[in-house]
Amino acid sequence: MEFQDVVRRRRMVRAFRDAPLDRDAVERILANARRAPSAGFSQGWAFLVLEGADETARFWAATFADDAARRRFRWQGLFAAPLIIVPLAHKSAYLDRYAEPDKGWTDRDETRWPVPYWDVDAGFAALLMLLTAVDADLGALFFGIFEPDRFRTAFGIPDDYSPVGALAIGHPAPDEPSPSLRRGHRAAEDVIHRGRW
Amino acid sequence: MEFQDVVRRRRMVRAFRDAPLDRDAVERILANARRAPSAGFSQGWAFLVLEGADETARFWAATFADDAARRRFRWQGLFAAPLIIVPLAHKSAYLDRYAEPDKGWTDRDETRWPVPYWDVDAGFAALLMLLTAVDADLGALFFGIFEPDRFRTAFGIPDDYSPVGALAIGHPAPDEPSPSLRRGHRAAEDVIHRGRW
Repeated sequence: MEFQDVVRRRRMVRAFRDAPLDRDAVERILANARRAPSAGFSQGWAFLVLEGADETARFWAATFADDAARRRFRWQGLFAAPLIIVPLAHKSAYLDRYAEPDKGWTDRDETRWPVPYWDVDAGFAALLMLLTAVDADLGALFFGIFEPDRFRTAFGIPDDYSPVGALAIGHPAPDEPSPSLRRGHRAAEDVIHRGRW
Repeated sequence: MEFQDVVRRRRMVRAFRDAPLDRDAVERILANARRAPSAGFSQGWAFLVLEGADETARFWAATFADDAARRRFRWQGLFAAPLIIVPLAHKSAYLDRYAEPDKGWTDRDETRWPVPYWDVDAGFAALLMLLTAVDADLGALFFGIFEPDRFRTAFGIPDDYSPVGALAIGHPAPDEPSPSLRRGHRAAEDVIHRGRW
C-alpha cells in the first residue's frame, strides 16, 4: 500500500473477527518493530508475542481486575483479537549504552536524560507495528497497561523491563469509534509554531 | 512510495544539501505529525518549525554551548539542513484530558501514568515525520536536545511544554553512517518472546 494511504487509513480498531492471521503478516509486523530507530542504536526493547485464544486469554486475565470487570468493558469485540504484542522498554540498556566510551556517561545517571528515550523508542516500535498492520489489511489497537505489576507477574517479565502498552491486532470487525474522537483534531494554528513560539 | 519501502529505506541522515524544500512536502510532514495517535486523543503536543538559514542558525546557537563546540561537532553537514522541527510534549494536556468525566482522574495525579504518554505520543509524531520525509525523497535526523533550558529560553517555549528531541530535514548529502550502527541489530531471539518471557 502507498505510504500516505497507510497513514490516512490508520485508526484504532476496537473489535476483531476471530480469524487467524497470515503468518507472513505477523512476522513482518515484528520485523518492522525491530527496524524502529533508537537512541545510540541501543534497541532497548523487547516484544512479548501472544497468539491464539489460550495465550491472549492469559493476557486479559492478567490485565483486568476480575471477570466482572472484563464483562463490563465497553469494547467486548477487542477480546477476539488473535494477536497481542506487548512492547517493553528496557531502560538499563540505555544507561549501559551511554556509559560506553563513545558516549561516556559512565555514572549511568538517569537525570542526564531529559526524555525517557527507552519509552519513546519502544513507542516508535509500537507505531511501526500499527502502521504495518494497516499495510497488511489488518486492524490494531494500542492501549495502556495501567496496572503493570499484575501483568509483569503473570508473564514473568524481568524487573528492568516495563510495558509501554499493548497492541491487539486482527481482522477488523465493525466497531464503535472512540468517543474521544468527538473532540476533533486540534487546529493546526494551535499546535504549529513557525519561527518562534 | 510503498509503505514497506519507506520503512526499509528509513535511516538517520546526518548531512544535507543546502537546497530549498518543496512546500507541499513540508506541509505534508506537518500534517502527518498531527495524524499521530494520542492517548485519549489528547494531542498534547506542539511543533516548532524553523525554516531557512536564519531560523535554523538560531536553533544551533541555542543548542550548542558555543561556537567552538559547534565547530568540533562531528557532523558538520547537519547544519545545512533547511528545516528543523521540534516536537514538544505537553503533559498538562494529558492530565487535563484524563480529569474529564469519561476518564475521571480528577486529581490529575501523575503517578497514575506508568508511561509518560505525552513523550511517547510526541515521539509517534516524530516518527511519522521521519517516515514522511523518506516518502518525499528527503532525509532526516532525529536527535535529542540534552540541554533543553537554553533552547526553551531562546524560543520562548512555555514551561509546560518539553522538547522530545528535534528533526533536521533536507535533501540528503553523502554522510558517514553513525558508528553506533556497527553494533548491529540485536538478534530476533533476544528481543522477541513468544507466549511467555
